[in-house]
Amino acid sequence: MGTFCGFDPRNLLICCILLFLSSSTAQLSFAAKTRHFKWAVEYMFWAPDCQEHVVMGINGQFPGPTIRAKAGDTIAIELTNKLHTEGVVIHWHGIRQLGTPWADGTASISQCAINPGETFLYRFKVDKAGTYFYHGHLGMQRSAGLYGSLIVDVAEGEKEPFHYDGEFNLLLSDWWHESVHEQEVGLSSNPFRWIGEPQSLLINGRGQYNCSLAAQFSNGTTEQCKLRGNEQCAPQILHVLPNKTYRIRIASTTALASLNLAVANHKMVVVEADGNYVQPFEVEDMDIYSGESYSVLLTTNQDPSKNYWVSVGVRGRKPQTPQGLTILNYRPTSASKLPLTPPPVTPRWDDYNHSKSFSNKILALMGSPKPPRSFDRRIFLLNTQNRISGFTKWAINNVSLVLPATPYLGSIKFGLKGAFDQNSPPENFPGDYDVMKPALNPNSTHGNGVYLLGLNTTVDIILQNANALAADVSEIHPWHLHGHDFWVLGYGEGKFSEKDEKKLNLKNPPLRNTAVIFPFGWTALRFVADNPGAWAFHCHIEPHLHMGMGVVFAEGVHRVGRIPNEALACGLTGKRFLKPTKN
Amino acid sequence: MGTFCGFDPRNLLICCILLFLSSSTAQLSFAAKTRHFKWAVEYMFWAPDCQEHVVMGINGQFPGPTIRAKAGDTIAIELTNKLHTEGVVIHWHGIRQLGTPWADGTASISQCAINPGETFLYRFKVDKAGTYFYHGHLGMQRSAGLYGSLIVDVAEGEKEPFHYDGEFNLLLSDWWHESVHEQEVGLSSNPFRWIGEPQSLLINGRGQYNCSLAAQFSNGTTEQCKLRGNEQCAPQILHVLPNKTYRIRIASTTALASLNLAVANHKMVVVEADGNYVQPFEVEDMDIYSGESYSVLLTTNQDPSKNYWVSVGVRGRKPQTPQGLTILNYRPTSASKLPLTPPPVTPRWDDYNHSKSFSNKILALMGSPKPPRSFDRRIFLLNTQNRISGFTKWAINNVSLVLPATPYLGSIKFGLKGAFDQNSPPENFPGDYDVMKPALNPNSTHGNGVYLLGLNTTVDIILQNANALAADVSEIHPWHLHGHDFWVLGYGEGKFSEKDEKKLNLKNPPLRNTAVIFPFGWTALRFVADNPGAWAFHCHIEPHLHMGMGVVFAEGVHRVGRIPNEALACGLTGKRFLKPTKN
Repeated sequence: MGTFCGFDPRNLLICCILLFLSSSTAQLSFAAKTRHFKWAVEYMFWAPDCQEHVVMGINGQFPGPTIRAKAGDTIAIELTNKLHTEGVVIHWHGIRQLGTPWADGTASISQCAINPGETFLYRFKVDKAGTYFYHGHLGMQRSAGLYGSLIVDVAEGEKEPFHYDGEFNLLLSDWWHESVHEQEVGLSSNPFRWIGEPQSLLINGRGQYNCSLAAQFSNGTTEQCKLRGNEQCAPQILHVLPNKTYRIRIASTTALASLNLAVANHKMVVVEADGNYVQPFEVEDMDIYSGESYSVLLTTNQDPSKNYWVSVGVRGRKPQTPQGLTILNYRPTSASKLPLTPPPVTPRWDDYNHSKSFSNKILALMGSPKPPRSFDRRIFLLNTQNRISGFTKWAINNVSLVLPATPYLGSIKFGLKGAFDQNSPPENFPGDYDVMKPALNPNSTHGNGVYLLGLNTTVDIILQNANALAADVSEIHPWHLHGHDFWVLGYGEGKFSEKDEKKLNLKNPPLRNTAVIFPFGWTALRFVADNPGAWAFHCHIEPHLHMGMGVVFAEGVHRVGRIPNEALACGLTGKRFLKPTKN
Repeated sequence: MGTFCGFDPRNLLICCILLFLSSSTAQLSFAAKTRHFKWAVEYMFWAPDCQEHVVMGINGQFPGPTIRAKAGDTIAIELTNKLHTEGVVIHWHGIRQLGTPWADGTASISQCAINPGETFLYRFKVDKAGTYFYHGHLGMQRSAGLYGSLIVDVAEGEKEPFHYDGEFNLLLSDWWHESVHEQEVGLSSNPFRWIGEPQSLLINGRGQYNCSLAAQFSNGTTEQCKLRGNEQCAPQILHVLPNKTYRIRIASTTALASLNLAVANHKMVVVEADGNYVQPFEVEDMDIYSGESYSVLLTTNQDPSKNYWVSVGVRGRKPQTPQGLTILNYRPTSASKLPLTPPPVTPRWDDYNHSKSFSNKILALMGSPKPPRSFDRRIFLLNTQNRISGFTKWAINNVSLVLPATPYLGSIKFGLKGAFDQNSPPENFPGDYDVMKPALNPNSTHGNGVYLLGLNTTVDIILQNANALAADVSEIHPWHLHGHDFWVLGYGEGKFSEKDEKKLNLKNPPLRNTAVIFPFGWTALRFVADNPGAWAFHCHIEPHLHMGMGVVFAEGVHRVGRIPNEALACGLTGKRFLKPTKN
């Protein structure tokens, strides 16, 4: 069209008519555009933090390509597995998969893993504007680098409830030099081998391991980076103009690290969390747990002759990883001009009051959907670290999740009772359990039962943290729910009790898909089980999930439409339903 | 039974009757015993050469458990995949799988890979006594350590055509410190990254990387091993009595290395090759290529107050790997008494005359099955190293094999034409191709077509070696055929031509399943396509197969019985034939 119209002025009238017609069509298609992608997943050599290792990339890129769509669009990704021996799936984190539960990309839950050489079509609607991301959801393939951003803009003609002049997108992750395969073996070994702290923090897949951008402030303990800017590990600079407002989208797909982000000399106004608008509030720094996403607004109101650090540091675990850094560059100041002051100091790792203060500020924007006033079912989920036959595990109500070979979506829909434990997992934990001390008996059991939820019922989840195996240790766990957003009704200390009931916020709790439980604390969530399918709910720390820290919910599976055969061709569904015939 | 009869003397008469009856039953079951095994494949930390890495083990063992059976027995192995993200299959190398082609354990050819968490039943008959082994056949999982021995004794009442007093079993392999995952990425990368020479040679999974058993002879370049004997890398000593004859079974499952084995001061009489008896001949050392197996007889006729080296060294490639060593220990001499002379010197790596002389001595034992006098079809297979879009590959008649997502056995049986290239690959290569020089055009193409063979026809294969990409380089390739033994009609130099026809040995060629082509040479094979199924025929060097060096034969697939559903639940067979119904 463009070429034709630009080519010959004699066709001008026809052109105008055609353009008019096509723009009308375009108007129509704006409302429901299907965006097609062909992706191939494969391993490749890459140097995310300047040291070369194997990463899992998509179409030769790490992180994978950013998907950009408008609310209401349909995304259609033909994903080809080019790995040699491994299956693969991709989960679209934050997308609720309304009506397409088979496209949620969770191995053993929503689909069979895509075999080497095979292609699976992920086709789903992005119904809600927001900052999302995608990542592998089989074994620890997310840790291997299988992730990328998914940005949904408001639908054509719609407006965001805030103004901005430009936009940046920061996908945060952590990176180990030990291969994920080896990490997995260590976690599954007796004696247990922990993966340790990450070697580097990555901003959009870029970090610096053997040097620092801010070495001049580090008393000579690290070398100043000598980067030309075209290296795989060179930081992406945020180029800004003075006196503008920028939206910075931030998402964390870390395997382990809880993070804190700050921009030197600049305040940020938080406006979005997990694809939901929040009541704007200003912060100097912000905590981001794995699985969370935010949008913040930053106004470039500082001295434009300088540049400013953007820093990301570890929280919640004693950090052994240098800050991830990049630079906010005021144009036309040269981007190579380093800031004259050190990067922002990340709050102390165990300053949980700082974290809680931030979390408690997150409230729904006025006019957001409100939670039902009451719940139909309340499930208490105790998070404990355990041992099973000498192996170290995490368990929920004393059950450590081991995913079955047959995905739940198919086995529930077709009533294959042998596919998983038919007993519902416990609704609660013993009333006398002391969450402040190591368990009297740390032994646990494996399980793969499902919490079957009544369709359209309101479910409360009280996530209850506890002491881990060692005394005086309780860790942060960011819990992520598939297929739904939940309202975060509140956070509290110690064991949740009746007196906490009245502290729950039913007025303006934020809608989110990920919420943290603080050490020795509880978090109360509410959601409506209105999305037929089988859905993971799990700690988003990759090794914790690998060690059993998750549960599975399912609701209205009889209402689920036709599951693609490829999603069923494994386990019992593959074995029982195959009826080979000659062509 | 035993407990009952040993428990109460009052039951003696009943016991005797029962024992008589059960021994009659036993007699019957001797003829066709089914041996059941439950195996789990998983990664584990192991130190095959004293340095710890991740290996693929079975039931916590590396190498996997040795299977011992009698000819005519049925082996039934329930193989559970306990890997987290990878599929797995096991090939029973040398077992022809008569009537059970779905149990051949070749991913993409005989079955779908077994998914994580799933169990596949390998059930097949071992019809012929001999020295066999098993190994992974997906990606490069053999290199990762997925292998073990499979020894079939003669049927009850039958006798071997030679006498021996005792027996040893040596499974030889090579070992890299770089993970197989990383090796695979390097081989599939552009620029190409070769895996290099192995760090160690292993005898029954044991080698020494950071020390040598024979360091006292090495001028101080390596340290003397300080092993107590219980280490994972401690050599298995061959304890013998003087003046006895021992059968040593030797099989090579190396990923790359061609080997030469020698026992200091002792001669060996070769009596079996690849599960077939050969005309006995005496040697001082023997070459063993990957995929081959032998039995040799060794008489302990040397000074019994000394011990003797058993050495394994690299041939056919410039060695950068120390010899693999163990000790032949004459009892009652202490096993810790080291030999006083250095280990046997491995023949020079490029002394191909030595290799050819050995290969030419291998002839069928009198009375062995003879080949048909003529062939129905003769396929020439030119082995070349190539480039495809900058990637380094191996190709056969200019086609580099890329295995399809749908296993051939199912796609051929059910006529799924879209599953693989329906054109037959070339029967020959251009007549003017100069095998002595680098190709004028080294570009090649990918392909996955099949050589469809007439059932029960006699097929000749002329394996034709050629110059690799670099001038004056031609490599050794040991070719292994699945589902059949072939007769090795002869080896020759340069390009096979009509004048070579009369050199072919139709009188007493050995039956084998693996045969080597020497640099710049040819090898002529003949077999009868009498086993309905789809069968790999490939270079047994793991990275060469990974780079495309193989072809697929199929015959009489319409005669193949019911393929287990699990073997079909992937690719097009999984997608098209799944008819889910409610239970």
